[in-house]
Amino acid sequence: MPNKPKRTELHELGEFRLIDHLTQNAKSVNKSTVLGVGDDAAVIGSTGKSMVVTTDLLLEGVHFDLTYFPLKHLGYKAVVVNLSDVYAMNAIPTQITVSLGISKRFCLEDLDELYNGIYLACERYGVDLVGGDTSTSYTGLTISVTAIGEASENELCYRSGAKINDLLCVTGNLGAAYMGLQLLEREKKVFEGNPNVKPQFTGWDYVLERFLKPEPRKLVLEKLQELGIKPNAMIDISDGLSSEAMHLCKNSKVGCRIYLEKLPIDQQTFKIAEEMSIDAVVAALNGGEDYELLFTVPIEHHEKLLDMEGVSVIGHITPENTGAFLITPDGNEIQLKAQGWNAIASE
Amino acid sequence: MPNKPKRTELHELGEFRLIDHLTQNAKSVNKSTVLGVGDDAAVIGSTGKSMVVTTDLLLEGVHFDLTYFPLKHLGYKAVVVNLSDVYAMNAIPTQITVSLGISKRFCLEDLDELYNGIYLACERYGVDLVGGDTSTSYTGLTISVTAIGEASENELCYRSGAKINDLLCVTGNLGAAYMGLQLLEREKKVFEGNPNVKPQFTGWDYVLERFLKPEPRKLVLEKLQELGIKPNAMIDISDGLSSEAMHLCKNSKVGCRIYLEKLPIDQQTFKIAEEMSIDAVVAALNGGEDYELLFTVPIEHHEKLLDMEGVSVIGHITPENTGAFLITPDGNEIQLKAQGWNAIASE
Repeated sequence: MPNKPKRTELHELGEFRLIDHLTQNAKSVNKSTVLGVGDDAAVIGSTGKSMVVTTDLLLEGVHFDLTYFPLKHLGYKAVVVNLSDVYAMNAIPTQITVSLGISKRFCLEDLDELYNGIYLACERYGVDLVGGDTSTSYTGLTISVTAIGEASENELCYRSGAKINDLLCVTGNLGAAYMGLQLLEREKKVFEGNPNVKPQFTGWDYVLERFLKPEPRKLVLEKLQELGIKPNAMIDISDGLSSEAMHLCKNSKVGCRIYLEKLPIDQQTFKIAEEMSIDAVVAALNGGEDYELLFTVPIEHHEKLLDMEGVSVIGHITPENTGAFLITPDGNEIQLKAQGWNAIASE
Repeated sequence: MPNKPKRTELHELGEFRLIDHLTQNAKSVNKSTVLGVGDDAAVIGSTGKSMVVTTDLLLEGVHFDLTYFPLKHLGYKAVVVNLSDVYAMNAIPTQITVSLGISKRFCLEDLDELYNGIYLACERYGVDLVGGDTSTSYTGLTISVTAIGEASENELCYRSGAKINDLLCVTGNLGAAYMGLQLLEREKKVFEGNPNVKPQFTGWDYVLERFLKPEPRKLVLEKLQELGIKPNAMIDISDGLSSEAMHLCKNSKVGCRIYLEKLPIDQQTFKIAEEMSIDAVVAALNGGEDYELLFTVPIEHHEKLLDMEGVSVIGHITPENTGAFLITPDGNEIQLKAQGWNAIASE
């Protein structure tokens, strides 16, 4: 036997350092490659008009649990999480491809359900399904979606454009999807203990829907455009506000201050969080799967933004050397932490 | 309990009918969608210049066996099988995205190997890695690659363009990759029976390489362009000549005649096939994974093609009502059969 080769476990790096490591040698040789790895989507350009491309992989047992995730919702969600990345570039999604790995457990009627959700999302957001790959799988269900969108060059919003003194804004509200997931997991455990107990979902429709059937923020972008507001920087919130704010700061070489009392959290999120003894603010900061947009705009738009439904100003951009902090109502400053993808670490 | 819902097993349909079923409702609403599902790649167009998009999903245990598939080769192959689809549209690949589902079994050094192969393919074919998604997986390794390419509108070759009397041509040779796979499977079984037995691979480099490290046919396309030959129709051979010829005929609404003695089969393929008691012609017709190009050209190019290295004229296109047949040297006509994806059926 040769010497044992070096073995660096992935959890020693964590998601973000792993991606940095694997993509550090990615060099672009095509002039049509405007932006590669490192934003919500890649940008492929011809003069004036740009295309954006983004992709997401959903694996059974990691990203979804079919015990409580209806296939139609899953198909819908698999599409919209990608559309959310396209919108986060301030682009309009136009096409998707869908690849599936399917095990024998699934029948045609199951796939019809899944595709009903896929087509519903396509219809609602004006997107064409243009291709894919269908394969057998010996393990669970695998769904890989790639979305393509378009924008004129000057409309695109990168993570890297935030300027000092910009207002930091977020659409909708935060933490609801995470609480929806916690509720589903709780009821699953109860059901596993006693299959005769009916799950207690009454009154929690909103948090469940936020997890099972998120909607990307197309309308907010349309409204911003109408008001003549172009964000300087934008990112979508898939891993939680904290992580995404730090991505935005790192890419823009700035810091930020986020005010805890400004965080938009729905009443139902507060209520279920209390019932389950979870801190709703932690859910909002680190919960993830919100698919809201986090963006910065020049401060002169402050008044216009205050009148805008579905947008909250939660803080502002500061110089890089001041760091990224959450300010509590009593004035304490808590440093933001990127959570990212801990699944490998905790496996 | 409600009535038991209807359950149609997927093997009742098979791959091609399943894809037809799932995509029958795909309607295009974006004018940039030039061609959706149904060719090697989708076509997304702006005036004059078109983009093509294609995607492939590779699942451990289904598409590759890490017992004998080196990770570097796997990364390389995951890229080139997509590039092959781009070339089959007569387009030039420009960008790829790579999504990975990784289980705890893999360490950073493993992923470096995989990415070495990915980057090698990118470098060799002038393609930029522009994005992806990295996720944990509780089962095996999952690789999803999407490739983007470009072509001017009038350069694109669809499956649907074959004309009656066109010559049917194929690049390289057929069946070698399938024999490489059979050899690897045989030696794996021997090794499992007795780990002290060294695998017998000497002398079989070519068939092994055809399976483990296929090369897409970029150079042949460049040569055709140089000679002023534009194929009327083109498709890449991933499922075997028989299936792909039938796809081409179906999409072009034509028939074809393929002459058995014209099939390009390498000497090593014949030799290992004989040793393993497999019919080399069956490997060529149904083996798959060749990643050669099957294309049709107007008959006036016959002389030019005869001089061209790496291209064989194997038959010609006939009217639709004459069907698709293989002609044996003694004049027998054998109807072609689409094999496609039998993995679900045989699972």
